[in-house]
Amino acid sequence: MSVNPDHPAANHQVVLARRPAGPVALDDFRLETAPVPSRGADEVLLRNIFASVSPAARAAMQGPTYRPQLTEGEVIPAGVVAEVVAGPPAGPPPGTLVATLFGGWANYTAVPATAVRELPLDLRGPLVRHLSLYGLNGLTGYFGVVGVARVRAEETVVVSGAAGGVGHVAGQVARLVGARVVGITGSDRKNAVLEKELGFAATVNRHSDSFGDDLRAACPDGVDAYFDTVGGPMLETVLPLMAGHGRVVCCGATAQYDADQPPDRGPRGFPLLAIVKSLRIEGFLVHDFQADWSEALTRLDQWAEGGQLTVLEDVRDGLGSAAAAMVDLMAGNSTGQLAVRVAGL
Amino acid sequence: MSVNPDHPAANHQVVLARRPAGPVALDDFRLETAPVPSRGADEVLLRNIFASVSPAARAAMQGPTYRPQLTEGEVIPAGVVAEVVAGPPAGPPPGTLVATLFGGWANYTAVPATAVRELPLDLRGPLVRHLSLYGLNGLTGYFGVVGVARVRAEETVVVSGAAGGVGHVAGQVARLVGARVVGITGSDRKNAVLEKELGFAATVNRHSDSFGDDLRAACPDGVDAYFDTVGGPMLETVLPLMAGHGRVVCCGATAQYDADQPPDRGPRGFPLLAIVKSLRIEGFLVHDFQADWSEALTRLDQWAEGGQLTVLEDVRDGLGSAAAAMVDLMAGNSTGQLAVRVAGL
Repeated sequence: MSVNPDHPAANHQVVLARRPAGPVALDDFRLETAPVPSRGADEVLLRNIFASVSPAARAAMQGPTYRPQLTEGEVIPAGVVAEVVAGPPAGPPPGTLVATLFGGWANYTAVPATAVRELPLDLRGPLVRHLSLYGLNGLTGYFGVVGVARVRAEETVVVSGAAGGVGHVAGQVARLVGARVVGITGSDRKNAVLEKELGFAATVNRHSDSFGDDLRAACPDGVDAYFDTVGGPMLETVLPLMAGHGRVVCCGATAQYDADQPPDRGPRGFPLLAIVKSLRIEGFLVHDFQADWSEALTRLDQWAEGGQLTVLEDVRDGLGSAAAAMVDLMAGNSTGQLAVRVAGL
Repeated sequence: MSVNPDHPAANHQVVLARRPAGPVALDDFRLETAPVPSRGADEVLLRNIFASVSPAARAAMQGPTYRPQLTEGEVIPAGVVAEVVAGPPAGPPPGTLVATLFGGWANYTAVPATAVRELPLDLRGPLVRHLSLYGLNGLTGYFGVVGVARVRAEETVVVSGAAGGVGHVAGQVARLVGARVVGITGSDRKNAVLEKELGFAATVNRHSDSFGDDLRAACPDGVDAYFDTVGGPMLETVLPLMAGHGRVVCCGATAQYDADQPPDRGPRGFPLLAIVKSLRIEGFLVHDFQADWSEALTRLDQWAEGGQLTVLEDVRDGLGSAAAAMVDLMAGNSTGQLAVRVAGL
């Protein structure tokens, strides 16, 4: 393994200091200096530029998800936009800009060469957009609406976590395919952004005492598609509002992640409401739609550059800010794609 | 309205005497004599021959489902095979044999002419088969497997309520499309029938102390499709066993029907497992597949007449036996399609 001599060989990284007991806290993380990781024969060594701060990382602290549970001392997992420092001959050459879901909160990460994809640099906009709109979150929002819910014009679509990295894309994509979109967030300020800048037809604040009634009033014809990023009690609130043959896109359960344990009960009304309303409730991976990525990215680029889709990003500076960013994320104190800039380009 | 003079004008019917307080009991029903119902201008008057005894009727006593909650004094709803006594000029002529989902436990029922379908009498077998295999339950089993779960050869399919009217068809259809089928019932005797006569690869008794372990052992590669007729705690047991991209067909929640109220919680692990396993969880109506009914019925007829699919029926005699049949159904003391013979052909 060789590291580009322009960069120091020291590797700053943020690891799990302890398993969170309840809501995640700064002391659950530790910023440490470690050797640059060794690269296996089939791996690329990456110099990370942007790293995501995502609910998935919090979920991994709670238990197994797509990956085994995160244990103490492990680097916090993250999607990254990075530069290849070194790799196998068949892999992307040094200097190539890539993205991978298997990065982390560190200056350097070694990942299988097959797990990185070269950035499609013909797409326009700032580099961080390859982490947001052109990355996992943007594609998740797009395919959740277009590929899973298969939203049609005139339908009513509800998005929870609607100002989040995935939700704000999902809501706008649903609007752009002709749906009437209702957003749920925990903040009047976020809701104002959604209505005034992102074209949501209506918004509801989940902290309102009249939340359930507000949501029902915002969806007088029922909910044709619910893009669910939060799970938990909100899913229980939405299920009875679903219209016949409605679709629930299970994209995240952030309301359930920031606790010591997953909840010991599921939403009341399930599966009975799925039966009597002929609901389709579906989780998915963006990789299920890999054949359509190129078309999706082209559309997202056109919408964003044409001013029809607004990308919300909240980029914090340096690995030292990552832990606080995670605390903010889980407390609802961030808007759009949350990321840290790990290094300059 | 005119009634065929071959039949008495008195109408015996079974009504809900009181809303069940817990498990359904004989005293919740009342057999009474009433006038033959008046037929509206767009309705047909039916003389019922066979009437189903179904979990859906028990669910309707608990709360609204596809239909409003059943109230005291109302005739117990049922699918029926019936003969048209009278109807509008554009409807099926008197003497036509029809089926409808909107019949009841009564000698005579008036239903919209658009709600009956003429029996496809080219299908072979006894008349009651139009209530079982060629009726709602058979089509539900078929389309749940073929149309919703889209079961493929070599997959592992679990069916709960596997000896029931829907389940025993679903399990055999899954076997016939090449899957390995695991049945769950509450009886070793039923399980023996499933394994020895219906070709299930394995069975599990839900009353066993080791039920969860037994099911896991029966599905060493995970569950690709779960045909769920019971909901409740069993769904909670199956969800963690689902394989990636598994499908859950939400067909019934019988475990939840025979109580005063629906349960106040859903299955633990939902929606988190739907997210991390990319599950598709789906309710449906057989009418969603109406374009394919003819093909389905032909295949079911061929399988049944060819001896590849065994139809289990439990036909009780007379409306006077309907209440006891419902009690048996909810207690697990029936096998296959449960029905009462209301009248001779």
